[in-house]
Amino acid sequence: MTTPIITAFKWVPPFARSYVRDMRARWAFEETGQAYAVDAIDFATVKSPAHRVFQPFGQVPTYTDGEVEIFESGAIALHIARRAPGIWPSDTAAQARAEQWVIAALNSVEPWVMQVAVVDIFEADCAWSQARRPAVIADVRRRVSDLSDALGDKPWLDGDEFTVGDVIMVSVLRGLHDCGMLSEFPNLAAYVARGEARPAYIRALAGQMADFIDDPEPQPGAQEPKP
Amino acid sequence: MTTPIITAFKWVPPFARSYVRDMRARWAFEETGQAYAVDAIDFATVKSPAHRVFQPFGQVPTYTDGEVEIFESGAIALHIARRAPGIWPSDTAAQARAEQWVIAALNSVEPWVMQVAVVDIFEADCAWSQARRPAVIADVRRRVSDLSDALGDKPWLDGDEFTVGDVIMVSVLRGLHDCGMLSEFPNLAAYVARGEARPAYIRALAGQMADFIDDPEPQPGAQEPKP
Repeated sequence: MTTPIITAFKWVPPFARSYVRDMRARWAFEETGQAYAVDAIDFATVKSPAHRVFQPFGQVPTYTDGEVEIFESGAIALHIARRAPGIWPSDTAAQARAEQWVIAALNSVEPWVMQVAVVDIFEADCAWSQARRPAVIADVRRRVSDLSDALGDKPWLDGDEFTVGDVIMVSVLRGLHDCGMLSEFPNLAAYVARGEARPAYIRALAGQMADFIDDPEPQPGAQEPKP
Repeated sequence: MTTPIITAFKWVPPFARSYVRDMRARWAFEETGQAYAVDAIDFATVKSPAHRVFQPFGQVPTYTDGEVEIFESGAIALHIARRAPGIWPSDTAAQARAEQWVIAALNSVEPWVMQVAVVDIFEADCAWSQARRPAVIADVRRRVSDLSDALGDKPWLDGDEFTVGDVIMVSVLRGLHDCGMLSEFPNLAAYVARGEARPAYIRALAGQMADFIDDPEPQPGAQEPKP
């Protein structure tokens, strides 16, 4: 087993910075104090057949440590969490709940959050986006409201202990910053702010930012991948 | 620890039968030969505060065995898979890949598959759905095409061994039956058919069907929940 290596992008447009999903792996590494290396690649490489052998959908991050080789930021974060103490609870029932919150973030919240980016960014120019937007917002508001009720006045989803479930849920909820919805749910806004204030989050963010090259333009012939 | 109990619906409209997500838990139980019980509930109960204590989004399934109490069909299937041999690989690297495929199904495939149901069923009457449909189909086709390339001529995602990753991926891909897209990717169509032909799948499906009451109408005042 060697030092784990994750892939990330060497350039993304300003609006995507801090949101690229290698952040989730970096944050988990930083919370658990594990050494890791980053292989920053460009949009042409991420869509190449060589990269797709490790990531069929042509995305980042991927993870390898010489023994385990996986993609999907949620699976990577869970794997990192289990490798060292810090964000993985010690008893079975709490481990199952931590995994539940990871998957709830990815399957019960993020698909709705992502539709906000679809109507506001990726399909902003499409004829239907304006008409569709209120339904998209109403759907995500319902999910976020349910989650706000579930969090209540607890600091983290499972209570006092910060887990990998919070790493992924905070990362997903951050996608609502631009549309302003978090301000409707003060406990969730505070929850996201608590996550973003953690020293490990701040280190992870600084790491992602430092790996972007300064060139303001993408490589010729390369296109920013849709989510 | 007692016999695990999952929740399911006692009635859904015909188009939703076989797709309700307790199928994923039932299938995992059947593959691993574990005894389980089903608590079939109605739409009013699933949205009640009492149920939301266990499932914040007011959905099924939930899982309890007296020790572990969780929601999210993906997390439940992973937990069931780890409780008994059958669909959970024995070595660490393969376990990480099985979990990767569960999460890939839920986060990199299902959100796109779900949009097909949104334009064809849940928002079929909305003014924008007709105009938007080609983009939705193009997006899901790109995901499914990538997955088809990743599967290649292997019987299952990880090769010869059927895992919980296939339980969830087959369950997600079944959502494309109605739109006919699977026929464009013969290896994936055959993959889904292999999954649906497994004796454990057939027993799980029979179980879900047997738990639906015959009454063709929902309870008064209850509404079929959106996904």
